[in-house]
Amino acid sequence: MLQRKVFRSSYRLAQLHEARRNTSYAGNKILGIVREQHGMWERRAPLSPDQVRKLLKDLPGSKVLVQPCTRRIFTNEQYTAAGAIVTDDLSPASFILGVKSVKAAELIPHKSYMFFSHTIKAQPGSMPLLDEILERKVRLFDYECITKDGRDDTPRLVAFGNYAGRAGMIDGLQGLGLRLLAEGYSTPFLHVPNTYIHRSMNEVRERLKVVGDMIKSSGFPHALSPIVFAFTGNGNVAKGAIEIFEHLPHEYITPEELPNLKEEIKQGRRKSNVIYAVKLKTSDLVRHKSDPFKFSKDDYYRFPENYEAAFHQTIMPHITMLVNGIYWDARFPRLITKENISQLRKAGNHNFRAVADISCDINGSVEFLSRPTSIESPFYIYNPEKDEIHDNISSKGILMLGVDNLPTELPTDASEHFGERLLPLLPPLLTATDGNYETLPPELKRACIASDGALTPKWSYISRLREQTTVLTNTSTPKIAPTSYLKIELMV
Amino acid sequence: MLQRKVFRSSYRLAQLHEARRNTSYAGNKILGIVREQHGMWERRAPLSPDQVRKLLKDLPGSKVLVQPCTRRIFTNEQYTAAGAIVTDDLSPASFILGVKSVKAAELIPHKSYMFFSHTIKAQPGSMPLLDEILERKVRLFDYECITKDGRDDTPRLVAFGNYAGRAGMIDGLQGLGLRLLAEGYSTPFLHVPNTYIHRSMNEVRERLKVVGDMIKSSGFPHALSPIVFAFTGNGNVAKGAIEIFEHLPHEYITPEELPNLKEEIKQGRRKSNVIYAVKLKTSDLVRHKSDPFKFSKDDYYRFPENYEAAFHQTIMPHITMLVNGIYWDARFPRLITKENISQLRKAGNHNFRAVADISCDINGSVEFLSRPTSIESPFYIYNPEKDEIHDNISSKGILMLGVDNLPTELPTDASEHFGERLLPLLPPLLTATDGNYETLPPELKRACIASDGALTPKWSYISRLREQTTVLTNTSTPKIAPTSYLKIELMV
Repeated sequence: MLQRKVFRSSYRLAQLHEARRNTSYAGNKILGIVREQHGMWERRAPLSPDQVRKLLKDLPGSKVLVQPCTRRIFTNEQYTAAGAIVTDDLSPASFILGVKSVKAAELIPHKSYMFFSHTIKAQPGSMPLLDEILERKVRLFDYECITKDGRDDTPRLVAFGNYAGRAGMIDGLQGLGLRLLAEGYSTPFLHVPNTYIHRSMNEVRERLKVVGDMIKSSGFPHALSPIVFAFTGNGNVAKGAIEIFEHLPHEYITPEELPNLKEEIKQGRRKSNVIYAVKLKTSDLVRHKSDPFKFSKDDYYRFPENYEAAFHQTIMPHITMLVNGIYWDARFPRLITKENISQLRKAGNHNFRAVADISCDINGSVEFLSRPTSIESPFYIYNPEKDEIHDNISSKGILMLGVDNLPTELPTDASEHFGERLLPLLPPLLTATDGNYETLPPELKRACIASDGALTPKWSYISRLREQTTVLTNTSTPKIAPTSYLKIELMV
Repeated sequence: MLQRKVFRSSYRLAQLHEARRNTSYAGNKILGIVREQHGMWERRAPLSPDQVRKLLKDLPGSKVLVQPCTRRIFTNEQYTAAGAIVTDDLSPASFILGVKSVKAAELIPHKSYMFFSHTIKAQPGSMPLLDEILERKVRLFDYECITKDGRDDTPRLVAFGNYAGRAGMIDGLQGLGLRLLAEGYSTPFLHVPNTYIHRSMNEVRERLKVVGDMIKSSGFPHALSPIVFAFTGNGNVAKGAIEIFEHLPHEYITPEELPNLKEEIKQGRRKSNVIYAVKLKTSDLVRHKSDPFKFSKDDYYRFPENYEAAFHQTIMPHITMLVNGIYWDARFPRLITKENISQLRKAGNHNFRAVADISCDINGSVEFLSRPTSIESPFYIYNPEKDEIHDNISSKGILMLGVDNLPTELPTDASEHFGERLLPLLPPLLTATDGNYETLPPELKRACIASDGALTPKWSYISRLREQTTVLTNTSTPKIAPTSYLKIELMV
């Protein structure tokens, strides 16, 4: 055993040595796919077996090496059947894909890698990895930086964001069911399984149909009605959540209609067997300090200090659950502070019961999301009166969902969606025989963060950012992909 | 508010007074059904709305009063539609049903009640309730004591035990899925929802079909095969668990076949795409200390001190999960001690991964079940090396399931099953106009524990038992119905 280790270690050293000598990033048509190593739930893959099959067909002479894994949602046998070679050794590959970052110690020097590196905000947790990437002269591409036409103001091309929204919404429904049961109400929500239970989005839709029919036929107990959700954010996260939500019987109303809703249902002027919802714009969340009627998005993002929160006064008192998908950093007012929710409760308003914080900014836009939760234990209770959190969901307070790896709850659909976007980008990366990243198509050129032991010019600000006490006081690894607002943040 | 309380309190006093004057337990054909008050999950009812309808039809002149409840799986509207009167005030009823015990302070004096009182083992936790029952001259019937023909050696007639087994097995499958994922294996078990997610047994069967098909088509990773379950117990609990299990592709083997199973699968002589199982008899669990080949059930139950555990040596090393449904008390050897599992791990055997302890005897037959778990958080990990428990299910060790209110996870089916057994027993209880419990049919007469402020002769040993330091050192409220062995215990 010891001998084997010594052998392996000297083999590894020789490999490193070899690779350091090699200074070309030329593509050799061999793609590697790593075994993911981030936590028990990471079952996604950057390409499905079917997508591997397509790549091998479309790019003659190509090979795909896949590290074996019994956790991945696609089996080793499925990859083999698709024509891939299942092997631990990815060193023959010139280009290596992961979903999440590869462990620093396992980076093969002078290879090209693509994964979510969580480095472009100079996130402290990822800086040791970045150092090793530079040290080993790894060329790093980051999915997060692949945008349409390689521009700063275009949407990202390869992302899971939509699946975070979907999973967050599904888990949120289950959480609300538990919360309401703890308060003494059996509701259809209790019969929505946690997201990971479903094998596919098809199963999700089937189940929501069943639960939707229950809502339609029985409605909600009088004391509980109306059930109202509020959606924030306008990115993929919010879109995914709303897509799920719309499978249930629902009616959208405006924020202005919120205060009279209960009365209107009582009078029979509105249905009691649907879920109501408000889709909130940024102008619904904040107001200008000196002129409540003045709002422009540009002005808000340039001078957030001139704005104050409004959500907690105009929306929160009337809703049952917040489904939060906004981008937030410390320059912006919070959606809800601890003080806000404590005041609401003191005023005797117990309508607001749950937060599905898909954005999952710890102590961020929802101040009392004080820790992330896990897929297997997705909820906790925040007690506003005592400013305490409790694992026991039957205790009094607000149900909080803060799962930070939501897309992996739907690994098959999420991987297929992701790989479909990724697939057309791969041939240039595998065949760029000159090894010059600058000659790649613009969306890929933009996504190259490091090469030849240095940050590329576009991303060189990362090293400056590391030295500053960053403007982003929220220093945890971001749980959702930064949206275009990040660009405002970093590119100005 | 204060005034209202004073009024209520004086009204209550008057009621008490009135009832104390009334010394007849005569039936008046009015049945009461209480609102259950035990924890967030108690959604069962002793009779479904359909059963109420049937009772009202079959017993002319009868009335059913149902306390309103938004948590109960059957809605107030459903009971009303069935002809019941939904009201908080059950005082007009001569006979009142609950599933779990009614709170001592809410017992209406001199009424007849039937519920699970957990008193016949003189369980310390239930003794304040029993005192109040005697004080208020409540006549108490206990479902647990209703046996066929009112004999001590016949099966119970009205029970949920089967549903404990079913729910425990379903939850156990989900738990095993989580445990295996934590070890790096994606398996079909992960797609079995926790029991309460299902609206009915029909949904359970549909889902098990889906999961069974996955097992059939993909089997299990080589390193994981074989998956083997062991079932203990021969009562309703074990029967319910086995009924669920048999919906999955399976093969039963004998304990003797266990040691060679892995090798036989490897050689292709047995399938790898089924779950294997052993149904264990008591003689598989223990052996006579002086003569390993001598076993008689009678001898074992009379002289358990002459027997020692065998399970941990002959069975445990070869199985994946124990589904435990035995009756146990401190006179019997444990199935598995902390020492047993620690030794097994030290010997490098990691096959044994999970315990679905449906019996749920704390520190009982499975010594390291050190606390009950809840439906919303049903699992914890026991680390045998460190003798520690962890909530984080990705930590190393044995997955433990110890939910102590399992049947309420399937409230519709469990209630309907229960009510069906209960329904034919009700007319004599509602019409016994002489108020003498001794003239009731034998199964009901036997079930009358207290009347007129005293224990009935059959159950008078409870007061003697209270005074002793009981032979049952396991003093927690029993989580499963005592089987016939309890009778050996108490009747000798």
